[in-house]
Amino acid sequence: MPVAAPLAVSLGDPAGVAPELIAEAWARREECGLSPFFVVGGAGLLRAAAATRGVDLPVVTIGDPADAAEAFGLGLPVLGAADCPPAFGAPTREGAALALHSLTLATDLALSGQSGGVVTGPIAKSKLAEVGFTQPGQTEFLADACGMPHTDAVMMLAGPSLRTVPLTVHEALAAVPALLTRDLIEGKTRIVARAMTRDFGLSAARIAITGLNPHAGEDGRMGREEIEVIAPAIAALQAEGLAVTGPHPADALFAAHERAKFDVALCMYHDQALIPIKTLDFDQGVNVTLGLPVVRTSPDHGTAFGIAGKGLASPGAMIAAIRMAGECAARRATSL
Amino acid sequence: MPVAAPLAVSLGDPAGVAPELIAEAWARREECGLSPFFVVGGAGLLRAAAATRGVDLPVVTIGDPADAAEAFGLGLPVLGAADCPPAFGAPTREGAALALHSLTLATDLALSGQSGGVVTGPIAKSKLAEVGFTQPGQTEFLADACGMPHTDAVMMLAGPSLRTVPLTVHEALAAVPALLTRDLIEGKTRIVARAMTRDFGLSAARIAITGLNPHAGEDGRMGREEIEVIAPAIAALQAEGLAVTGPHPADALFAAHERAKFDVALCMYHDQALIPIKTLDFDQGVNVTLGLPVVRTSPDHGTAFGIAGKGLASPGAMIAAIRMAGECAARRATSL
Repeated sequence: MPVAAPLAVSLGDPAGVAPELIAEAWARREECGLSPFFVVGGAGLLRAAAATRGVDLPVVTIGDPADAAEAFGLGLPVLGAADCPPAFGAPTREGAALALHSLTLATDLALSGQSGGVVTGPIAKSKLAEVGFTQPGQTEFLADACGMPHTDAVMMLAGPSLRTVPLTVHEALAAVPALLTRDLIEGKTRIVARAMTRDFGLSAARIAITGLNPHAGEDGRMGREEIEVIAPAIAALQAEGLAVTGPHPADALFAAHERAKFDVALCMYHDQALIPIKTLDFDQGVNVTLGLPVVRTSPDHGTAFGIAGKGLASPGAMIAAIRMAGECAARRATSL
Repeated sequence: MPVAAPLAVSLGDPAGVAPELIAEAWARREECGLSPFFVVGGAGLLRAAAATRGVDLPVVTIGDPADAAEAFGLGLPVLGAADCPPAFGAPTREGAALALHSLTLATDLALSGQSGGVVTGPIAKSKLAEVGFTQPGQTEFLADACGMPHTDAVMMLAGPSLRTVPLTVHEALAAVPALLTRDLIEGKTRIVARAMTRDFGLSAARIAITGLNPHAGEDGRMGREEIEVIAPAIAALQAEGLAVTGPHPADALFAAHERAKFDVALCMYHDQALIPIKTLDFDQGVNVTLGLPVVRTSPDHGTAFGIAGKGLASPGAMIAAIRMAGECAARRATSL
């Protein structure tokens, strides 16, 4: 069976919690079943970050991703000499430049097949914008790097209890109804269905689609988007053979007995998708980008500058992001 | 210490699950710590409903609510002779008429002080409309009966994990942004604050108010309602001395460590309030009406015609609704 190449992990903002959590993940690699990974840059930074948590971190500097797998048992492999001084909680321009370098190279290595996928540490977008980052977020950066339209890079949140996909993301709520079209719903659902097979091994994933309105509109009495847009999209997807159901009233869809009936829920807007996953799986949520030629995951939290370097940040989401990327990469390698 | 009068429980639609759940609640009254209650009508129906669950239900028919407390230890007290034949799962006009009679009389008895409060069984609004029920729901029926504007009857969902109030309820999502005004937010928050003291014994309830948009608008980048409406309302309420915080990004507000910081969350729309409570407390959610001169609770589920009479319905929410009404009624009686 082919083995996936080691994962490339980007540092995220050096002033945030990502470096300490990456170090912690390496220290727990065996108990957590993590496949080999390496970090792009930040050897000194990672050692300093580890020390703030009382983790004694051996670092193995490598010059070639091909050396990562062997180095992984000895220490945390770090690719290249790029670094910056530790300044936890206080983001700097120098740190932002390192974060952008790390993200860019990690992505390139995944695209060239030298890594099995990329796990991105959280960044501060406004800081990175100062050093040339032009996208609204890392997901769009990945889409651009892959030469794909942003709409084809689909964000999924995944935790132990639930997977959800917001069909619209960072949009004012008032703008959401007009953004919901059959094309949007059908296009993103097809991407999700393919990714569930390719990356998650679910060949006929059960996809639950929510309504937009209370009680999914209650036959048009509280909004007509279900009748005019969502239900026709679902019918078309069902006709293609996809295991799609809905429109479901969103309020009851995330109770345990309902969650057992689907593999992933497609939701109409940000909070509809993120409330249930953050309510159930706050410390273990993974942000997965579906539809790309490369595997990409990220812990579903921000830089958390306020607690960086204090030993307070939970490593659960970072560990889950690395583990999930490894599992997805292994599936892709096996199916080649 | 004054003791509250027994609670009046309305039957709900006789074809739904309410009768069997009321019977089950009486059977478990001691283990669940329920204070005395009586049902308005349906003696034969309740016996038949109990039998479908294997509950042997003694019924004590009473002619006066004053006899309920003494009868409660012997059997389920049922006030009056109104009844209808059992037809679980198959709603009838005769059943709807009984449901409306039961609701009307239970409400009148609470208003006159002959009962300590009212617990309403779920109804099918379209069925009740055929027999003269003109309101959109039971909450509005209660408001009318109390001679109050519907906007002063505030719906709260309460479970073991969480209490939430939707500031707008059965409205199409597209209509929500325009409905959010300072008056609405401030008026409902004041009602909630008073009810937290009077009915729940929290003299300085911590009230968390959500934003409308993703990340609570992120400083106006994704919608301006937080800046223009919600934050000014919060500032005004804080100036009055209320322990109000926000606008909070709704997605992270319901994680366990955030829930510990507030007593009740005021949310901008239906699903924002109902997703977290149904996700966490599906079988134990209580719908409480705040701001009325009478105590009113209801299990947060519908008639569930599809499983009525099959022994499948969970009694958790009905039991919780009766227990909460009893606790609220006791607080009101003590504070008189």
